[in-house]
Amino acid sequence: MHPNIAVTMGDPAGVGPEVIAAAWSDPGTHERCRPFVVGRPALLRRAAQMWKLPLRVVEIRDPEEAAPSPALLPCLAVGTPDADDTPPGAPSALGGQAAFDALRVATDFALAGRVDAITTAPLNKAALWQAGHHYPGHTELLAEWCGVSDFAMMLYLAHDATIRGSAGLAVVHATLHMALREVFEHLDTASVLAKAHLAHRFMLALKGSPPKIGVTALNPHAGETGLFGDEELRIIAPAVAQARIGGLDIEGPYPADTVMIRARDGDFDAVVAMYHDQGHIALKLLGMHRAVNVTLGLPIIRTSVAHGTAFDVAWQKKANPASMIEALRVAALLVNRREAEAQRAKAIS
Amino acid sequence: MHPNIAVTMGDPAGVGPEVIAAAWSDPGTHERCRPFVVGRPALLRRAAQMWKLPLRVVEIRDPEEAAPSPALLPCLAVGTPDADDTPPGAPSALGGQAAFDALRVATDFALAGRVDAITTAPLNKAALWQAGHHYPGHTELLAEWCGVSDFAMMLYLAHDATIRGSAGLAVVHATLHMALREVFEHLDTASVLAKAHLAHRFMLALKGSPPKIGVTALNPHAGETGLFGDEELRIIAPAVAQARIGGLDIEGPYPADTVMIRARDGDFDAVVAMYHDQGHIALKLLGMHRAVNVTLGLPIIRTSVAHGTAFDVAWQKKANPASMIEALRVAALLVNRREAEAQRAKAIS
Repeated sequence: MHPNIAVTMGDPAGVGPEVIAAAWSDPGTHERCRPFVVGRPALLRRAAQMWKLPLRVVEIRDPEEAAPSPALLPCLAVGTPDADDTPPGAPSALGGQAAFDALRVATDFALAGRVDAITTAPLNKAALWQAGHHYPGHTELLAEWCGVSDFAMMLYLAHDATIRGSAGLAVVHATLHMALREVFEHLDTASVLAKAHLAHRFMLALKGSPPKIGVTALNPHAGETGLFGDEELRIIAPAVAQARIGGLDIEGPYPADTVMIRARDGDFDAVVAMYHDQGHIALKLLGMHRAVNVTLGLPIIRTSVAHGTAFDVAWQKKANPASMIEALRVAALLVNRREAEAQRAKAIS
Repeated sequence: MHPNIAVTMGDPAGVGPEVIAAAWSDPGTHERCRPFVVGRPALLRRAAQMWKLPLRVVEIRDPEEAAPSPALLPCLAVGTPDADDTPPGAPSALGGQAAFDALRVATDFALAGRVDAITTAPLNKAALWQAGHHYPGHTELLAEWCGVSDFAMMLYLAHDATIRGSAGLAVVHATLHMALREVFEHLDTASVLAKAHLAHRFMLALKGSPPKIGVTALNPHAGETGLFGDEELRIIAPAVAQARIGGLDIEGPYPADTVMIRARDGDFDAVVAMYHDQGHIALKLLGMHRAVNVTLGLPIIRTSVAHGTAFDVAWQKKANPASMIEALRVAALLVNRREAEAQRAKAIS
């Protein structure tokens, strides 16, 4: 089946429109899914023109109308025309509002079952705040709209010459978009355990067999048995123990630097990292351009590029569409897995 | 010239004796320097035997006697014979004391000018503490014995296919062996600035021209202009500004994940990282086995393997000697650079 995917345009001041237009020209995209964009047609036309792509942008009114191809980009217009004048390369309320509008509409389509998944282009948090929406980012907005509290942002890299695990590598963060100082108030056994279960369920679906999970420590050298901090003993080890009792194939906490090496080498299918940079430093080094962001725990399937708005290179024809191509591929894969599961469940019942 | 290097045996329960014996058999080692070991001859014999190396361990009384070759390992015996019975693969007071004794003697030789440099095998902090020496690690012991307060541990990777900078990549840490929670009390503008100058001086010597330095942020997304923490604005940016006034070619703070990518790609010769895992996750992924640890700011030259005692694989013939080989190579290189500098200074005066 060809999943129907709503792609949000993201902040028009950033690289979103460009990477979407460039990803559209990849024939592989259309072999795997049936995407359309939620955003501003004029901006997508401008992006296609800048990249000199033979891409016709057509306006649609309903997701069901979309008939995309490498030469045809269906766009469902949302927001206000002044968004077309968003100043490029800098945060602004205009850009933040445009990104917000596209995300809201795409999410509603997904919640209503009118699309199979959403894939999002980047927004900028400062712009989002300037537009009056005080959220750390996409993930937290989606969690609120979907009414879930048990969610996580996951970074995913597919299997390749670097990532030796057959199902790729997933990294989930126990804490995410907050000052490093705030991690200590937010990290608890329940959240590490919840993230481990989310990672387990995701990779179980993708791999088809129970995944191996590695858990990072918070402190250097995993706290060196209490010499450098006690969060390993107080918080993380109990979560790992509970997860094992719950049937997960999980190990840790281990020093973050060794967990990431072992994950690369295929010892772990998934890693639970304690905070943002722990996961991001590793994932970006292992495959910056092709990393995909997946929100776990939502009732809808959502993937995203793993990069930001990249204001410094936006609208200069320098952006790399690899992450957008991969985000669409992973969204389609997840939809197909979900359908296969549903079929199997039906056959059994 | 062939620098005379004292190699400490490290904790005998760990991989130290093995990686030393294995590195000894590399002919390249002896083309670059004239090393001898400070430690327990019986343990080095045991390691050579386990690895089936045609290596004769001879006892010496003075550094000046050392006449090493791939077939001959001179060892200056220190410590007590009971160290020879240190239980392998676990921390013990015996192992901690043996590592301490070797380090103390080697450091004294260096301070007295009887060796050109020291290269250290790993010790274990829990074992060190069990032996009654309450220090976080090698670096802090050396700083105390050398009477310096302005020092830093640096990780170094030589130029290769991955590390594109011609002089390799150096990563200095503004804070190091402490709980992550303690980083906030220890991080200040003066220490970031001091680390930048140490990194600059080191890479200037190695590269022969002013190095480019990148500085990481502490918080995710470099604090997103104050939304996720203010240490970038309060502490790090002022240090970068002062360093620029002081003539350094330095940029930042940038998000840690992007700084590490740019450093790998040759945009930066050195990185100032804010805490242990920020630097270590990246460096280990970029070249775990060949990374070298260099202590900056000491009156003596000291390099070290970048790995720990690795109790889980010690005395099983599984250890990789690449970091020890590289640590000896970098020590020799630094001695030769220092000599060349001294010659030039003499010629000018």
